[in-house]
Amino acid sequence: MIIEAEATTPSAILDRASLLLDAFDGPGRLNLAQIVRRTGLPRSSAHRMLERLVQLRWLRREGRDYQLGIRLVELGSLAVHQDRLHRAAKPFLHELHRVTGLVVHLAVLDGPDVVFLDKIGGDLSTAIPSRVGGRRPAHCTAAGKAILASADPRRLDDIVTGPANAQTRYSITSRAQLNAQLEKVRTHGIAVEREESTPGVGCLAAPIGDLGEAAVAAVSVCGPVDRMQFDHRLAAPVRTTALNIWRQVDDGRVRVHPTLQHARPLGHGPATRPQPDSRTPRYAS
Amino acid sequence: MIIEAEATTPSAILDRASLLLDAFDGPGRLNLAQIVRRTGLPRSSAHRMLERLVQLRWLRREGRDYQLGIRLVELGSLAVHQDRLHRAAKPFLHELHRVTGLVVHLAVLDGPDVVFLDKIGGDLSTAIPSRVGGRRPAHCTAAGKAILASADPRRLDDIVTGPANAQTRYSITSRAQLNAQLEKVRTHGIAVEREESTPGVGCLAAPIGDLGEAAVAAVSVCGPVDRMQFDHRLAAPVRTTALNIWRQVDDGRVRVHPTLQHARPLGHGPATRPQPDSRTPRYAS
Repeated sequence: MIIEAEATTPSAILDRASLLLDAFDGPGRLNLAQIVRRTGLPRSSAHRMLERLVQLRWLRREGRDYQLGIRLVELGSLAVHQDRLHRAAKPFLHELHRVTGLVVHLAVLDGPDVVFLDKIGGDLSTAIPSRVGGRRPAHCTAAGKAILASADPRRLDDIVTGPANAQTRYSITSRAQLNAQLEKVRTHGIAVEREESTPGVGCLAAPIGDLGEAAVAAVSVCGPVDRMQFDHRLAAPVRTTALNIWRQVDDGRVRVHPTLQHARPLGHGPATRPQPDSRTPRYAS
Repeated sequence: MIIEAEATTPSAILDRASLLLDAFDGPGRLNLAQIVRRTGLPRSSAHRMLERLVQLRWLRREGRDYQLGIRLVELGSLAVHQDRLHRAAKPFLHELHRVTGLVVHLAVLDGPDVVFLDKIGGDLSTAIPSRVGGRRPAHCTAAGKAILASADPRRLDDIVTGPANAQTRYSITSRAQLNAQLEKVRTHGIAVEREESTPGVGCLAAPIGDLGEAAVAAVSVCGPVDRMQFDHRLAAPVRTTALNIWRQVDDGRVRVHPTLQHARPLGHGPATRPQPDSRTPRYAS
């Protein structure tokens, strides 16, 4: 009989649960052997925790395969729904979609990425591969550049502009390119992106937040790059939407950070893009 | 010094984490004292776990208040995105919205409720309070009735039709009413709902799955009840959409349950609607 060391502190067990769930970020279905390989957790410990996560409906099991479960859908949806910025933004996002006919996103910065909190798009929506809860390297998106332009310079340390992080052949691949673009955002109050995130797709984004302070989010419109008007005709409604959202959310009460943007303390070293294999320490069996 | 008993088994700690997250189903922001009151967990243990959940980004903290975090948004979105039924359904749902102009839902049964996996709706969408990841009593919705009509009769034990579960004054409030409606669904292959879930809103739904077997999901169209055509003009495209989705998902491979519907083993007693205060055992401090 092999006796495996058990994690015993609550923190260690939460880390393991997080590691187990993170393993599903990529493949949708995993059996026990695959999960053990991906997480490095002891087999029997992983099995017991997986079965409990199934009971809690964070996972579901079919035969030998595990998948993410419906309780995560509920909690994730609740997290967005309870987000104060998202709630304030919702009607303005719909209005911007109605006026422009383009796909509208609400995005926040999370480490080196933007994460989309909403996407409104009608038929065009299916042609653009973004999704609520999905992430993209910030420097490859209009929304990301809109937020980065006013961010604490230390946040830029998180951004890795190398070719490995390029999404298309038009993506920014150097710090100099990024700095030049962020300077433009500071001048015009609008960020532009032409096929830097998805081939054939262009975007325009405006930061949401107080002038002169770090933006808390961005609103963007995306569409076929050859049908986009990269000028004031499109910039004006996007800027106005950002302004209206901020007016709605910034209602004069004690200022609290109104959205899900992860407020990682600065100065704790650069964040790395979450990778199933690197973001959490592995456990030897 | 007060020494508090610590949960030590991984299962007990996962239960506590689940209990902590479930506390946010309702109020969006909770401080430590409120969380302790809602969960019954020992204060110091709750505090340590909350801080770890913040580090894992399942929660976020602002000052003294905790809220659901961005990692849950990502995992929840991933769970929907990886759902095989949802992926197959997506283009057909958009097409149904385009053809009918109504709000389109994809829903699965989870205990006594339906949970929405998708909602497509354009401008009308904001007028209907459903949301992806949200739940409604199954017997008060067209989608729920569409699924229940072919469900194992034991599943109906989960459904509590009493007035306490009514959503509007038109909701089904007796077993006899429910049975009569389910019989109609079996005859016509379509479920109808008139203001039984939301005042002013009507719905039509069709079950998704093999004829003669338990449906795995339902597709519904909702809109202002006074503008809905509760006849074949609307029933036909809804039925066709359900059929097309099932053809797409049921591709002849080994049958696996293709969606997030929680496959609770039957015969384990009736499920109760999740309640923050009752669904998980409390812990004495």
